Amino acid sequence: MTGITHDPAVRQCIDDCLQCRTTCLGMAMGHCLERQGAHSERGHLTLMLNCAELCGTAAHFMLAGSTLHTEVCALCATVCGACAQSCRQLDGMEHCVAACERCAASCRTVSGVQAPGVHASDQLPTTGVTGGPPRQGAYG
Amino acid sequence: MTGITHDPAVRQCIDDCLQCRTTCLGMAMGHCLERQGAHSERGHLTLMLNCAELCGTAAHFMLAGSTLHTEVCALCATVCGACAQSCRQLDGMEHCVAACERCAASCRTVSGVQAPGVHASDQLPTTGVTGGPPRQGAYG
Amino acid sequence: MTGITHDPAVRQCIDDCLQCRTTCLGMAMGHCLERQGAHSERGHLTLMLNCAELCGTAAHFMLAGSTLHTEVCALCATVCGACAQSCRQLDGMEHCVAACERCAASCRTVSGVQAPGVHASDQLPTTGVTGGPPRQGAYG
Amino acid sequence: MTGITHDPAVRQCIDDCLQCRTTCLGMAMGHCLERQGAHSERGHLTLMLNCAELCGTAAHFMLAGSTLHTEVCALCATVCGACAQSCRQLDGMEHCVAACERCAASCRTVSGVQAPGVHASDQLPTTGVTGGPPRQGAYG
Repeated sequence: MTGITHDPAVRQCIDDCLQCRTTCLGMAMGHCLERQGAHSERGHLTLMLNCAELCGTAAHFMLAGSTLHTEVCALCATVCGACAQSCRQLDGMEHCVAACERCAASCRTVSGVQAPGVHASDQLPTTGVTGGPPRQGAYG
Repeated sequence: MTGITHDPAVRQCIDDCLQCRTTCLGMAMGHCLERQGAHSERGHLTLMLNCAELCGTAAHFMLAGSTLHTEVCALCATVCGACAQSCRQLDGMEHCVAACERCAASCRTVSGVQAPGVHASDQLPTTGVTGGPPRQGAYG
Repeated sequence: MTGITHDPAVRQCIDDCLQCRTTCLGMAMGHCLERQGAHSERGHLTLMLNCAELCGTAAHFMLAGSTLHTEVCALCATVCGACAQSCRQLDGMEHCVAACERCAASCRTVSGVQAPGVHASDQLPTTGVTGGPPRQGAYG
Repeated sequence: MTGITHDPAVRQCIDDCLQCRTTCLGMAMGHCLERQGAHSERGHLTLMLNCAELCGTAAHFMLAGSTLHTEVCALCATVCGACAQSCRQLDGMEHCVAACERCAASCRTVSGVQAPGVHASDQLPTTGVTGGPPRQGAYG
């Protein structure tokens, strides 16, 4: 992202938020509404749309250089985690699960929040590594 | 808001978030960029744009009927409070201050968060009253 | 809308676009996904979400005071018209039909575009009257 | 973009719209508001924000698989062209000019609209080549 920030973790997080937003929006309006049934169940579909919305907002705060971005990213990690869990119950949602998990990991890195169930002593020292799944696809 | 929720505090909060979003966006792109100087200083202008963005996202979660809306609204109250404070330093921003304060109050009501500096014992029992400033204007 | 414009037709159009956005988003994520079946059919649901998105964008251009708003509003009138037609086929969508029709009418007024099937000679002189249905509800 | 479309020109256009949105938003809230002066002049800054908004909307229509996307993309090409021209007058906006030009070219390809000043007979047969500048950067 040009002209914004030189912090590589923030730049990565912007990319991951935008990729997650696009994947969630596209999968919700594409795959899920094509499949119907559990895929278009209200709770699941609105969670995907909410997740897309909040990811866009987290990127917006980071692009602005706001110091409030850590709080937005912490919340974004929570919502992405919930969206990944909802997607994991359904067929053909692997891309969305991966995008949500990667975004949640980046958002935790940026906000300094621990992953749920992770104790500080379990963590290896990191150097900006987000720990997400291998990157693939257009924004890779 | 039709077909969404019957909780009057949530409906009021949706209205207040959308009004705050519109006022912040309009004032940022109108009054502030007309005036330049302190009004278009980066920290102030991006806070107004961020605030508008997050208010829209809070409304999106409430319109979706998401249970995660309380966390989004708690954060929205914080950002609206910061935006109100920034606007209070500048000329001609009264509408924006009022919209941000009203939205922050509604968001606190919906999320169950106390106003900063308010002790629980100071509060009168409320019955859906948001405690914001008098309402005015198009969305009254 | 404060500090934006003094043109009453543009101010009305901003309100109508924002109301249409909110109604479409809320009905899509609420009523339509509750009802499922034809209400959550992909073509219909994505049209409602697209319509909400474009209405927000049209308001954004008007709030910015952009001279390009006429072209955005002309397109918005088309998409709102398509959304109203799709909603008219389904139960319980009267609010959404009304919001889309009102927004389409305001957008045509602002952009100088004729309604489909209307001949210029059929039109009475107007003085900023949008010709939409009676206004109701929160943003009245 | 997963699960959306198999048309490579549309997929490319989604990427280019999202990249343009991010670049315009980031440059507006970063470089332009840092620099002030002509960079933060109202007409320029709001055009960048409007352009970002419409690019996001064009991507939204394409992600939805809407047949109305051609009209949104045609308008997006116009606004991106105007934004590129505005950015070309200012220092340090090369990334934004490139992103806008690339997005405008992709949008014209997808919508079947000619570039301004181009006669049909001047065009070589194309096979999905957008004719934009060389691609660089994170979304490359």
